Amino acid sequence: MSESKTVGFDVVKQIEGARGRAGVIHTPHGDIATPAFTPVATKATVKTLTPEQIRDTGAQAILSNAYHLYLQPGEDIVDEAGGVAAFENWRGPTYTDSGGFQVLSLGAGFKKTLAMDVSGLQKDDIVADGKERNAFVDEDGVTFRSHIDGSEHRFTPEVSMRIQHALGADILMAFDELTTLMNTRAYQESSVERTHRWARRCLQAHNELTDARGQVDGHADSLADGQLPLQQLFGVVQGAQYEDLRRKAARGLVELSREFEDAGKLGFHGFGIGGAIEKHNLGLICGWVNDELPDDRARHLLGISEPDDIFAAVEAGADTFDCVAPTRLARRGGVYTLDGRMTLTNARFKRDFRPVDAEVDSYTSLNYSRAYLHHLLKAKEYLAGTLCTIHNLYFMVHLVDNIRAAILEDRFYEYRDEFLGRYYANGGRAVGN
Amino acid sequence: MSESKTVGFDVVKQIEGARGRAGVIHTPHGDIATPAFTPVATKATVKTLTPEQIRDTGAQAILSNAYHLYLQPGEDIVDEAGGVAAFENWRGPTYTDSGGFQVLSLGAGFKKTLAMDVSGLQKDDIVADGKERNAFVDEDGVTFRSHIDGSEHRFTPEVSMRIQHALGADILMAFDELTTLMNTRAYQESSVERTHRWARRCLQAHNELTDARGQVDGHADSLADGQLPLQQLFGVVQGAQYEDLRRKAARGLVELSREFEDAGKLGFHGFGIGGAIEKHNLGLICGWVNDELPDDRARHLLGISEPDDIFAAVEAGADTFDCVAPTRLARRGGVYTLDGRMTLTNARFKRDFRPVDAEVDSYTSLNYSRAYLHHLLKAKEYLAGTLCTIHNLYFMVHLVDNIRAAILEDRFYEYRDEFLGRYYANGGRAVGN
Repeated sequence: MSESKTVGFDVVKQIEGARGRAGVIHTPHGDIATPAFTPVATKATVKTLTPEQIRDTGAQAILSNAYHLYLQPGEDIVDEAGGVAAFENWRGPTYTDSGGFQVLSLGAGFKKTLAMDVSGLQKDDIVADGKERNAFVDEDGVTFRSHIDGSEHRFTPEVSMRIQHALGADILMAFDELTTLMNTRAYQESSVERTHRWARRCLQAHNELTDARGQVDGHADSLADGQLPLQQLFGVVQGAQYEDLRRKAARGLVELSREFEDAGKLGFHGFGIGGAIEKHNLGLICGWVNDELPDDRARHLLGISEPDDIFAAVEAGADTFDCVAPTRLARRGGVYTLDGRMTLTNARFKRDFRPVDAEVDSYTSLNYSRAYLHHLLKAKEYLAGTLCTIHNLYFMVHLVDNIRAAILEDRFYEYRDEFLGRYYANGGRAVGN
Repeated sequence: MSESKTVGFDVVKQIEGARGRAGVIHTPHGDIATPAFTPVATKATVKTLTPEQIRDTGAQAILSNAYHLYLQPGEDIVDEAGGVAAFENWRGPTYTDSGGFQVLSLGAGFKKTLAMDVSGLQKDDIVADGKERNAFVDEDGVTFRSHIDGSEHRFTPEVSMRIQHALGADILMAFDELTTLMNTRAYQESSVERTHRWARRCLQAHNELTDARGQVDGHADSLADGQLPLQQLFGVVQGAQYEDLRRKAARGLVELSREFEDAGKLGFHGFGIGGAIEKHNLGLICGWVNDELPDDRARHLLGISEPDDIFAAVEAGADTFDCVAPTRLARRGGVYTLDGRMTLTNARFKRDFRPVDAEVDSYTSLNYSRAYLHHLLKAKEYLAGTLCTIHNLYFMVHLVDNIRAAILEDRFYEYRDEFLGRYYANGGRAVGN
């Protein structure tokens, strides 16, 4: 582990007998100590918070979205502003997601356009009655309609790379196809192959853009005028719930990366683990994938934030996590406590002058009562979202930081059992608080 | 001017040849250097900001509303929380308005229930076609309907005092009748007399509540357990646009205060200047009133924030100001600059990477571009309101702080002409920025 590294990943300590580890991801805007939870700044803002408030939750990095920023305000504007971090005044590492998930979930109207009752079904085009599919995948890319105004757009691996380079985040995701658990096995197979072909095109475009934009290795604040910091591309592993497909997808991306590196080009600096994953086999799937991935590359698990899922994923070797759940839940008055979740809009909090959680030292918990937060929520005051968001991000960021500390102190399993035993004592809901 | 004073007002310096002055208001939660602009925290929150963000704008005190907090969450809850400052985590002086304005403007559906075209009219009950009046004044008080759920409520001077004592702000306003400029001269006369009778009942109730609640003089943080800090009541001067009524109202309140003080009771520690006031005679009306008020009591002008109005009112002897305009405007993307107001939703700001105002050192202006704020506003992101509110409060608080500095340096008129000449060069709208 070198002090001067600005790209790449180092393992600091392994969990004994497991894939999981504590490590450090290097970026031109600083290091990320892992495991780490990364708040989501979909549209170049972690909803309701200033960068100082985000930083105060303990967050080390934030993740924005290529799909959203392409539609609004446009990646060219973010580029002119000096990249997403400069645009939003965030002085630290940034990620962008590729848009792969969004064009297919939002574009296709996931949960809205898809039929809702699909239990046990396997069908490649399950659309709700009276709805039309809005995103279409072909070999070259995805054509979709904007969820904002219905206008038609097209993403390809090259388009996603161009957008993400313009956005200028430190860590980019390769453009992949999102499938659902309802797709047939045959479709998943052909999709994994297509995602592999797209990954190659992503690496190719990533290398060309890196050269064309004059991106170089080095700390962002020590680069010369006109030089941009090197961006790192993560290859995204798909394959749904199938062990052979997940392993094949991971191996394929590793080989592809090696092929580029052998040719003196940039490979994948890390990997994303994507796709719809069910709770019961999340640890299993992460394990399959991480078995195949090299230990010296970081692994980002996309879209997970339930405490039990995080413990399972860390144990199986995932390093970083992002999820909108803590921020979205907060705006509706849902807050985390060590005894599970509470909903502060509930009438029983009207004259409850205790903090959100006396054992959690978030700014919110240290300075406000449940009664005040209840009042703000009932009065639909903006500050409600801010204060609950600060609390939830603090809770989630510190949970993952504590997992890191536990790994370093050889007590991962002890901390896991203690935390989860208490958090889920009432099924994850705080009762009688 | 004593360091240990916790109630009252001291003049520090007078504007030569004018009523205006720089001074200090003492409260149990700290001093307020005047002239000062006081942000409005209607429902125990300056909308979108944490107390630290409010403090960082330079604000010394905030003003909440008895009407709103009575309806939601209820003054009893705020009382149990330790008062409005403790409830909202504000470590500084607080004001509450009496509800007099709100029960009559919101309760009566001001601008909604009142006929819109009333120019030149004089009529005591001008109601729009098809609307019903929702607030009724009688000698004893006002019966009104909640703007939230239409439920019927009744405020009297005693009720307002009870609510404001429960809310526990440092400075309270007497309960007064709000008239409009459309009321007849005869109605204004009888209203001023009624407001005077209500002022006596307010002082009576204020003294009884002060005793009953064990309120004593002293710094809030040095009081013994169970002791509450002394609250100061300001008498509110009405009288519309009539010089004789305004002077009579002011003199009446001064005499009333002296009567109580001579009897060894609490009088008015300061005065509020209320009522609908037209721009063109705002300075004139403040002058009439302040001619009659004693120099050793603070004067709060209710609901004013236009720069030219503030200069006119300060010159005429007003000390503190509150207004929702800077915060309300901000949430819609309206921001102040030294060259007038701008609306950041305007398309011309889409790729304008300059700060809001390069000469105004607000956190927002120092750290964000117009393009970023434009993006947040177009994307309807919560942070837009926060950042624009921070900027506007900083601008307004510093404008009034600069007026204070100018008074202390004997250049009030110089600063006024310089500021207003530039701000209104384009009619108060920033052009060509």
